Amino acid sequence: MALEKYIRDIVDFPKKGIVFKDITPLLASSEATSECLQVLLESLNKQKIDKVVGVESRGFFFATLLAQELNAGFIPVRKPKKLPFNTISASYELEYGSDSLEIHIDAIQKGDKVLIHDDVLATGGTAKAVCELVEKLGGEIVQLNFIMELSFLNGRGKVKEYPVFAVITY
Amino acid sequence: MALEKYIRDIVDFPKKGIVFKDITPLLASSEATSECLQVLLESLNKQKIDKVVGVESRGFFFATLLAQELNAGFIPVRKPKKLPFNTISASYELEYGSDSLEIHIDAIQKGDKVLIHDDVLATGGTAKAVCELVEKLGGEIVQLNFIMELSFLNGRGKVKEYPVFAVITY
Repeated sequence: MALEKYIRDIVDFPKKGIVFKDITPLLASSEATSECLQVLLESLNKQKIDKVVGVESRGFFFATLLAQELNAGFIPVRKPKKLPFNTISASYELEYGSDSLEIHIDAIQKGDKVLIHDDVLATGGTAKAVCELVEKLGGEIVQLNFIMELSFLNGRGKVKEYPVFAVITY
Repeated sequence: MALEKYIRDIVDFPKKGIVFKDITPLLASSEATSECLQVLLESLNKQKIDKVVGVESRGFFFATLLAQELNAGFIPVRKPKKLPFNTISASYELEYGSDSLEIHIDAIQKGDKVLIHDDVLATGGTAKAVCELVEKLGGEIVQLNFIMELSFLNGRGKVKEYPVFAVITY
């Protein structure tokens, strides 16, 4: 199955000059979602995973599926003030200014084997912030995986200590 | 398994006087998540579902899982300006003012059998708005299901045309 055909280009979203990769056609097809999930799982090569961390909010879609298939817990990383319990945060740079992400302090136990999932690897800023959060809590990062990688933005350069996998590379 | 013990009360979140029901302990347990998913599936009594609509963003967690188990497409309903393609919207009232939700115009085909999922049924305002979106696109609502129902807020009163199921009732 050519999963690329389930990704829709949206020109000038969220702002002029950006071509946004829309994964909703992929999600609307149970067959394409199942295939994409299998490719993500195979990339792990049967390594043990205790927790799957999904990044708000498009990272949630496949992170919950991955967690159930791996018999692992699902952990959301969210934007500030969205998580109700005590959190730690990590900031990352945007084109103008910065933003931050939060994780619950009890989300990961020391030594947990962690898979980090998001929909897109772009500049890697978000991914690096998530790695910081996981490691602050004592988690061991097994892999970062993504549905898509925008390789021209060289996000891998920001997370080169970790194995990175993407189903589709642009 | 007593799923209630995986729901954590957070006092005064997101604001003073509210006791927030935190589902992250449930999500962090693959066994509890699996059990909750089975209860939701059994409530459908093997009815055919074409699309599972999940409501941003805590509704996404179980909606993706339900969709895969049902061999159905997953459709996100999101807050304004988050969905990249053409949308329709429906508004709902808040304590002060109003807000709205959007769905992609191609998300549901006429006659699709639709399951709507969110984490909590509270006043029913959000649920009613999602029903409007699904019906505007020609979908047939089979059930609305929730992890939790805050029955003292009588959300069912707002969606009484449809079957409603909740795993846990407070």
